[in-house]
Amino acid sequence: MTTSQNKISSLGEFGLIHRICSKAESGVGVITGIGDDAAVTISTPGMQLVTSTDMLLEDVHFRLSWHSARLLGRKSLAVNISDIAAMGAIPRWALLSIALPAELPVDFVDEFSSGFLEMASEHGISLIGGDTCASRNGFTISVTIMGEQFPDHIMRRSGAKAGDEIWVTGTVGDAAMGFKILEDKHDSAQSPDESLSKIPGKEHLISRLLNPAPRVAAGLALAESGLATAMIDISDGILGDFGHIAELSKVGGVLYLEDLPLSGELRSLHDRYREMTYRLSLTGGEDYELCFTAPPSHREKIYSCMKNCGITASPVGIVTSFPRITIIKGDGSKYNPELTSFNHFIPVLNQRCHQDGEN
Amino acid sequence: MTTSQNKISSLGEFGLIHRICSKAESGVGVITGIGDDAAVTISTPGMQLVTSTDMLLEDVHFRLSWHSARLLGRKSLAVNISDIAAMGAIPRWALLSIALPAELPVDFVDEFSSGFLEMASEHGISLIGGDTCASRNGFTISVTIMGEQFPDHIMRRSGAKAGDEIWVTGTVGDAAMGFKILEDKHDSAQSPDESLSKIPGKEHLISRLLNPAPRVAAGLALAESGLATAMIDISDGILGDFGHIAELSKVGGVLYLEDLPLSGELRSLHDRYREMTYRLSLTGGEDYELCFTAPPSHREKIYSCMKNCGITASPVGIVTSFPRITIIKGDGSKYNPELTSFNHFIPVLNQRCHQDGEN
Repeated sequence: MTTSQNKISSLGEFGLIHRICSKAESGVGVITGIGDDAAVTISTPGMQLVTSTDMLLEDVHFRLSWHSARLLGRKSLAVNISDIAAMGAIPRWALLSIALPAELPVDFVDEFSSGFLEMASEHGISLIGGDTCASRNGFTISVTIMGEQFPDHIMRRSGAKAGDEIWVTGTVGDAAMGFKILEDKHDSAQSPDESLSKIPGKEHLISRLLNPAPRVAAGLALAESGLATAMIDISDGILGDFGHIAELSKVGGVLYLEDLPLSGELRSLHDRYREMTYRLSLTGGEDYELCFTAPPSHREKIYSCMKNCGITASPVGIVTSFPRITIIKGDGSKYNPELTSFNHFIPVLNQRCHQDGEN
Repeated sequence: MTTSQNKISSLGEFGLIHRICSKAESGVGVITGIGDDAAVTISTPGMQLVTSTDMLLEDVHFRLSWHSARLLGRKSLAVNISDIAAMGAIPRWALLSIALPAELPVDFVDEFSSGFLEMASEHGISLIGGDTCASRNGFTISVTIMGEQFPDHIMRRSGAKAGDEIWVTGTVGDAAMGFKILEDKHDSAQSPDESLSKIPGKEHLISRLLNPAPRVAAGLALAESGLATAMIDISDGILGDFGHIAELSKVGGVLYLEDLPLSGELRSLHDRYREMTYRLSLTGGEDYELCFTAPPSHREKIYSCMKNCGITASPVGIVTSFPRITIIKGDGSKYNPELTSFNHFIPVLNQRCHQDGEN
């Protein structure tokens, strides 16, 4: 086999499609999968269709030097599944479009599609279609995901009521800290400061960024039990994402900074980098946890429901009728973070905030 | 207003989404459109869901110097609608993801989304979701489209039977000739040969490339009447696309070269560029006509059905049981084109075939 045979350009479009599809399995509701002009699926009677799409660009959403092809395949589907989880729906079908530089090795595509299909299999999702093309400018991934749920169980951003508690699953800020660690390492060629890349527990924090776990079971359990009133996934930071709930529910909220759940790994950095851990837990994106609201009377049932799903959840604030979000520190004073949410039009690589003065 | 306020970077992600969505209308089956983690839709009882996706990349699928933003918006949805038309389904809902260079003017996005929504409106399609992000490397568009149809009416590539006639709607080769004209003009800075850009009727040929019209009414009429046995849209050239029908139907076919329907504009080039018009009519992509098969006994009904849809259709060959595709010239001899189908991994800009010796 010559070198050129090991590159994507040697496969051609149809060879590449075959290579990805040959491993795909058809699951629930798939009538016609890959191979025709369009896929044909059948919905579960009585359920509505819940559809979302996300695009991931090289050097905007990921760096190939950070992500293995397999983890990138997993993550490109995981971030889409997370949107279905936030609706309290059951993920069913996915379409995967990729634009690939022709010089990428075939192994890369094999690993990428293995990761994607592994994530699909873990959540009972069928890959039913997509598109492949040659890219002149980096690797681009676009995924569309479809799920379904009975109308009464679909969760939206718009149901929060004043007096509800604000909750979050798992821990927040880990992925953003993972990003800072990798970015610090990335820049270390120019700078001798490698302090972040030497912190203990960094593997967990980096893994939260590179290999997120969408909270499907928790989203479903909260939706089907009727315990939550509104829900969103945390892709841009809890402050910005609860902000979307507040906006669509026409409410406001108070978030208690010290109540935000931090992983042991992030908490261990709290003394040294207090301002940064505060900020990342509020505004750090890509945790793919769920933020939801629920009446205070549901508190014990929520703890129990989340325990059954194998995850934790923490009340972190209160929904208010006044349409503003306030953050309160442990001493009762107000806290004002500088960057309120992830913005894709501030390129990721410029979103490091050196103003902390901590490193 | 400063110059920077006229660029996309001044809008931010949410400003950009708002700018596109504020013009979107909700139609049939839309429960929740843009603005939540996912869109919620409801299918027509008894119908199955038909889903397809296509990605368009700058300098691979389009050049910004050729396409106005409005036509690019129209085309990015049209090529997706064409897949739904080929399934005989009714297009319903679309998702639009765009990665935009931050320095593009805001007017460009306004024009692009106007064109997209204009095409959506012409076909009763609702824009229900999408994604926007900053691109460091050109403009990338990814569209997912969903349609629906009763199971008995859904057309597939796999239904062709030996003895069926092979049909094509409209005319073939126009878009590929339009591409050659634009490409010739593009290269004229280096070369004094502008012969193609001076041919009569070039506006029609270029328009076929830049502003294709998906054959939704024809696809629906053929599907719902039960006249056709298999169908596909012509995105890669009739030879390659009928090849997909042949492969999935486990048949072959004979295509009569002189029967391929040419527009007056392409036919006028036939004497001067005979070999090229032959080749483009067989292997030229992007016409977005429908290729379908039907028993010979349906011929008159098909003519009548297509007339009712306001378009023409022509029988161009016969399905054979022997699994090979043969092309027969007017004198009864075989014809062998050099390039059998469009391949996205041969970059578009390298697919001009100078071997014709015609220009």
